[in-house]
Amino acid sequence: MLLVYMVLTLKAVAFIQTNRLHRFSCCSWILNSRIHVHERVNRAERQFRCLPDHHQQLLTNFIPNLTKIRYCIDRNQEVLQAIVHNCLHMFENMEYGQDCDPKKVRPSSTFDMDKLKSTLKQFVRDWSEAGKAERDSCYKPIVEEIQRLFPPDQCDVSQVKVLVPGAGLGRLAWEIAHLGYSCQGNEWSFFMLFSSNFVLNRCDKENALTLYPWIHQFSNNKMSSDQTRPVSFPDVNPQSLPADSDFSMVAGDFQEVYSDPELWDCVATCFFIDTAHNVLDYIETIWNILKPGGVWMNLGPLLYHYENMANELSIELSYEEIKAVILKYGFVLELERESVPSTYTENDRSMLKYLYDCVFFIVRKPAEQLINGDQTPKDGQIKDSLQTKKST
Amino acid sequence: MLLVYMVLTLKAVAFIQTNRLHRFSCCSWILNSRIHVHERVNRAERQFRCLPDHHQQLLTNFIPNLTKIRYCIDRNQEVLQAIVHNCLHMFENMEYGQDCDPKKVRPSSTFDMDKLKSTLKQFVRDWSEAGKAERDSCYKPIVEEIQRLFPPDQCDVSQVKVLVPGAGLGRLAWEIAHLGYSCQGNEWSFFMLFSSNFVLNRCDKENALTLYPWIHQFSNNKMSSDQTRPVSFPDVNPQSLPADSDFSMVAGDFQEVYSDPELWDCVATCFFIDTAHNVLDYIETIWNILKPGGVWMNLGPLLYHYENMANELSIELSYEEIKAVILKYGFVLELERESVPSTYTENDRSMLKYLYDCVFFIVRKPAEQLINGDQTPKDGQIKDSLQTKKST
Repeated sequence: MLLVYMVLTLKAVAFIQTNRLHRFSCCSWILNSRIHVHERVNRAERQFRCLPDHHQQLLTNFIPNLTKIRYCIDRNQEVLQAIVHNCLHMFENMEYGQDCDPKKVRPSSTFDMDKLKSTLKQFVRDWSEAGKAERDSCYKPIVEEIQRLFPPDQCDVSQVKVLVPGAGLGRLAWEIAHLGYSCQGNEWSFFMLFSSNFVLNRCDKENALTLYPWIHQFSNNKMSSDQTRPVSFPDVNPQSLPADSDFSMVAGDFQEVYSDPELWDCVATCFFIDTAHNVLDYIETIWNILKPGGVWMNLGPLLYHYENMANELSIELSYEEIKAVILKYGFVLELERESVPSTYTENDRSMLKYLYDCVFFIVRKPAEQLINGDQTPKDGQIKDSLQTKKST
Repeated sequence: MLLVYMVLTLKAVAFIQTNRLHRFSCCSWILNSRIHVHERVNRAERQFRCLPDHHQQLLTNFIPNLTKIRYCIDRNQEVLQAIVHNCLHMFENMEYGQDCDPKKVRPSSTFDMDKLKSTLKQFVRDWSEAGKAERDSCYKPIVEEIQRLFPPDQCDVSQVKVLVPGAGLGRLAWEIAHLGYSCQGNEWSFFMLFSSNFVLNRCDKENALTLYPWIHQFSNNKMSSDQTRPVSFPDVNPQSLPADSDFSMVAGDFQEVYSDPELWDCVATCFFIDTAHNVLDYIETIWNILKPGGVWMNLGPLLYHYENMANELSIELSYEEIKAVILKYGFVLELERESVPSTYTENDRSMLKYLYDCVFFIVRKPAEQLINGDQTPKDGQIKDSLQTKKST
């Protein structure tokens, strides 16, 4: 069985040791989420019992539906337990002991629960047949452009190094590796990393596992059964990469992990750049780590993750402002689609859908630097690269 | 000038006197919201000033854009001040004094601010050319069905009594009254009532006023100017109702206000039924207040407003469950469209759009009651009316 290497950077190791190993210890994570989700269903039942008798009698399906939801919660828990069981020793370069004492359980926060819910939905997005339309809308354009810019019949794709920051459950990075490119995913969230480790390294049979990703959605259901419908995964065998694949997932903060300059031929960001406190930091990092002549392709909206978080730095720029900055850094615009419709972990039967009108662009770091070797533009040196440079 | 009667029910009067007159006193509402919105812009400026110098210099448009936003905030305030100025004495059956001492200003909560923001956007939905597509998607089907069921060439439409619960800024009710029907809107939110009073009773020139409804949206802007673009209103002269119109807006809680049975020929709910703590209460009220033979038409999603509010009763039903209850009450299904796409106060240039996949149905309360005169179904009497009754 091929193991996808899960790599921890030194900073990520320190981070886990000081901060997260306890918080994300297996039992804590699992036991708490189960309690929390069941409590939501218990609340629904309590409120139902408060209704007048003749209302309760009109709602003959209410309690049977809650029973179904409880069944689904427990099935989800089994998968989550498998994920956590397999995350011990998942990182090739770190040894750490088990920390599974149920007495040490930490109460799960609303924030953790939101992370848990979105992780479940990521399985649909990345590894189910139900997520195919969504993947076609946002991963496919990136994969097609990589093939166009680095054609398999004109170059040794195994030597083309592609980085996917914000890799989530790894499907985009996996698709790129599946085509023979050298590909590394980077992810910060341990919820995501545990889950991608599970699906990439422990699942080898198509649609062998089942999740109920929509059980947390009590609003906007047309049919009661929409809430409890199953989704199978993985839709493909993740182990089906070519034998000589160079595919890895790296844990840690993008800016901290990627400081070595001029290492990558392509950086592909999908629904990622709005996770920055300051998107200019990301742009600067991408500029630095790309080889001269390398390309950055980006697809996504600008839903700034820190906008509404107190005490967090959050710089919200329009796409127009971001594009101006990218050009000032010296990137050359090669492709721009200003209206690419896409969704993100969509529940296709919900009465409320979130439709993203994404931008998709490809910019290139010129092969020949005109800014005298210094890759950080200084005040007087900032210029519109579209006017002064040619695409390589 | 035609005055649309704004009516307070006795319960609503008591509610205002004991609870809300202070809270919604003009100065408090206005002064606070201005401070709150400006503070959001000040925060953006403070965070920008924290950036490294070379980042600040790359963002040449950042501070000028904040200046524009501040200008727009103050223009919005002028309209809000006009709204509040005109809301004194807006109710025909209530006299109350001014309570405008700025020293009594109450800090505005996040909840108030959300209400304020959504009220601004309601002006786009209900009274701007920019909102036309949205109105066509959700008001037009209702208006067309009213005309089909109560044809102007076959009945005296001025005698057809139509009720619009959750009337918002009043456009749907106004459109119905504009066609000659007797129409009453009902609204619970004072933010909405103040605003509908202003637009219905004080605006008589097309597109004479300007709001900047998108200034609160810092994420998902393609162009910086998208955030500060103006919207003119009203797109029609609200005073252009027929001279003999019977059109009123009633303040108060739907269930409390409407207890007189068999008064209405038609109840039209649009994006309303999910505002209930318990949607069965709404169904029961609608059943009771409809004349025998009267119709209820409904269009909207099921985004239950109280789902995530602690200590609030919230019963979340699927459409399937709601439909079953409606039939058990004795309604007869006459029309059902299970997939009507619509939006709600959509920013059409945003990179994130909320798309509702609505249900639209028309049900009729039979002219002849089979349940022996008792209109509340009892345990043994509950039956599937589709099987036992015919449409009248």
